[in-house]
Amino acid sequence: MMCSGVYKELLAKNKKAVEPGEFPIAAVALDHPHIYGMVSALVAAGATLRWIYDSDYEKAAAMAAQYPGAKAARSEAEVLEDPRIALVASAAIPAQRCALGLRVMAAGKDYFTDKAPMTSLKQLDQVREAVSRTGRKYMVYYSERLHSESGVHAGELVRDGAIGKVIQVMGLGPHRLNADTRPPWFFDRAQYGGILCDIGSHQIEQFLYYTGSQDAQITAAQIGNLAHPQYPELEDFGDAMLLGDKGATGYFRVDWFTPDGLRTWGDGRTLIVGTEGYIELRKYIDVGTGQEGDVVILVDGIRERKYSVRGRIGYPFFGQLILDCLNRTEYAMTQRHALKAAELCLRAEAAARRIKLS
Amino acid sequence: MMCSGVYKELLAKNKKAVEPGEFPIAAVALDHPHIYGMVSALVAAGATLRWIYDSDYEKAAAMAAQYPGAKAARSEAEVLEDPRIALVASAAIPAQRCALGLRVMAAGKDYFTDKAPMTSLKQLDQVREAVSRTGRKYMVYYSERLHSESGVHAGELVRDGAIGKVIQVMGLGPHRLNADTRPPWFFDRAQYGGILCDIGSHQIEQFLYYTGSQDAQITAAQIGNLAHPQYPELEDFGDAMLLGDKGATGYFRVDWFTPDGLRTWGDGRTLIVGTEGYIELRKYIDVGTGQEGDVVILVDGIRERKYSVRGRIGYPFFGQLILDCLNRTEYAMTQRHALKAAELCLRAEAAARRIKLS
Repeated sequence: MMCSGVYKELLAKNKKAVEPGEFPIAAVALDHPHIYGMVSALVAAGATLRWIYDSDYEKAAAMAAQYPGAKAARSEAEVLEDPRIALVASAAIPAQRCALGLRVMAAGKDYFTDKAPMTSLKQLDQVREAVSRTGRKYMVYYSERLHSESGVHAGELVRDGAIGKVIQVMGLGPHRLNADTRPPWFFDRAQYGGILCDIGSHQIEQFLYYTGSQDAQITAAQIGNLAHPQYPELEDFGDAMLLGDKGATGYFRVDWFTPDGLRTWGDGRTLIVGTEGYIELRKYIDVGTGQEGDVVILVDGIRERKYSVRGRIGYPFFGQLILDCLNRTEYAMTQRHALKAAELCLRAEAAARRIKLS
Repeated sequence: MMCSGVYKELLAKNKKAVEPGEFPIAAVALDHPHIYGMVSALVAAGATLRWIYDSDYEKAAAMAAQYPGAKAARSEAEVLEDPRIALVASAAIPAQRCALGLRVMAAGKDYFTDKAPMTSLKQLDQVREAVSRTGRKYMVYYSERLHSESGVHAGELVRDGAIGKVIQVMGLGPHRLNADTRPPWFFDRAQYGGILCDIGSHQIEQFLYYTGSQDAQITAAQIGNLAHPQYPELEDFGDAMLLGDKGATGYFRVDWFTPDGLRTWGDGRTLIVGTEGYIELRKYIDVGTGQEGDVVILVDGIRERKYSVRGRIGYPFFGQLILDCLNRTEYAMTQRHALKAAELCLRAEAAARRIKLS
């Protein structure tokens, strides 16, 4: 079993975690385009894509055409019954992610789902029970940290003590609605799970990670449909406050109000305040400048620094996940952490006060 | 009586609101250096400083030396008994601001106090009663909007509909502690009133102003001494969520954690999200760049803009206040607004959950 330092070294060098064929995976349920990011990152880290299944065969075939050696399956069973497959990646409709994961784990495979990983506390109970019973992983693509070089880098800075002890993590997660391009389930509360569950999940995961919290309370939460009466079940705004088990606090706002004039889908920010300094991430754009995202601002006792980490950090999570699956370790992310973040999203959504503009 | 349009035109041209001698003022109680900003802004707008009183005569004399025609008084009564004086500006110890204001209003003069304008709900009741009985003004120097060109400009943008209907106002108010330069009352909770009352007052005033709220609920509030055990009564962190009477929401964080490496006292930000765009103010610094503050970012349906308003907007509040005092109008700020912001600060502080790091 390799130690995490070795994992990091491996992946910092953009080495693959395994040789071709050593870690065969499948993609099942392509409902959200995140599946393309999930699979490409796993393949870049050494995984070999063998099967793709979606209820829309043409969609699966189109993806298969991009990966030599990958084949569109005629049924989910064809994938789950293939003993070579180690892990199934999936971006199903959120409300269906749990059921698929239970089938994947029952088939003896690890599961890697898009966020949010589930939409109800009952599903969470089922997942925890199945994880415990089968020993399989139910991992989650919290992409706004795992697939963000500035997000990864902030974790390194915090771990290295660059800003002292973390006091607060604040996350801003505005998204562009692009209503015309969204499938019907996107506007159906029962299917997408609510805004705090859906795009809020990134924020809660980051809060737990950067503060090193094992658990947290939701101290306030709000959701609302403030300006989209044509989509009555859309929650276009949500925010929440968290209090971690070590006293660090969190606040995040998520919304579907990115204006058309922004050059990208959202001006996502992460602000981490520590006892000795602070970090700001301008994750996807440095708004009002020519710069793209992954801009890091670090202010400490000595000076202000502003720099880009684009192309300099990579995405170590994916190779670590492959090695974790092979070695049954938890360096990429613990199962407890992945599901605690999910739990808090569901609790936030359940506790949320509904607001509206008058 | 002039209309507000005329006030604005006057002041945009940096004309004085009145001729020399038409609006004589005094400064009483110089405990916080904000008094220098208050007086200089009033004088720039046309006021004539006649008297300065402080229990430390030398301090008053030093200030008087900067203003031709101003004189250090031997007693507070010497100021309050001078019938020429129209307004008394003051930056007393916060817990003493109310008592001084009551004496000023009883003497038939308007009062202009540093924020926070009081430290208890009982004082607030006294102020409201005295305002109603005497007809005098108890105005407040909420400097982070009134004495900030970007803060003023954001109000113009919102009023002009640049971002549609305001959904949320978020304020970040980090401050440098500079503990060695602070007087003892700064560390005495009963005297400064708590962090949400003190520096939180700027944030709550801005929330009410930019959202056009007449009232608000405090939906969450926290305070704590997270890293300064040597000052047990200092609250070095506070945050709160507000819900305005028209459904707009607010969040702010205030703290005393500005690291020494920052080029100024605090990386204050205001973020205003509207249905059609958003505004970010980098009020005192554009961190990590060579730029000073008053940087405005405006993103709407058409484009991203980033520009500086330093030296281009001025501070219309002060001339408007002078004219309001002379004409008994409320264009600079309504009495109701000034005291509603104060009330919400006190309610936030009273409702706050105490947090600590473990």
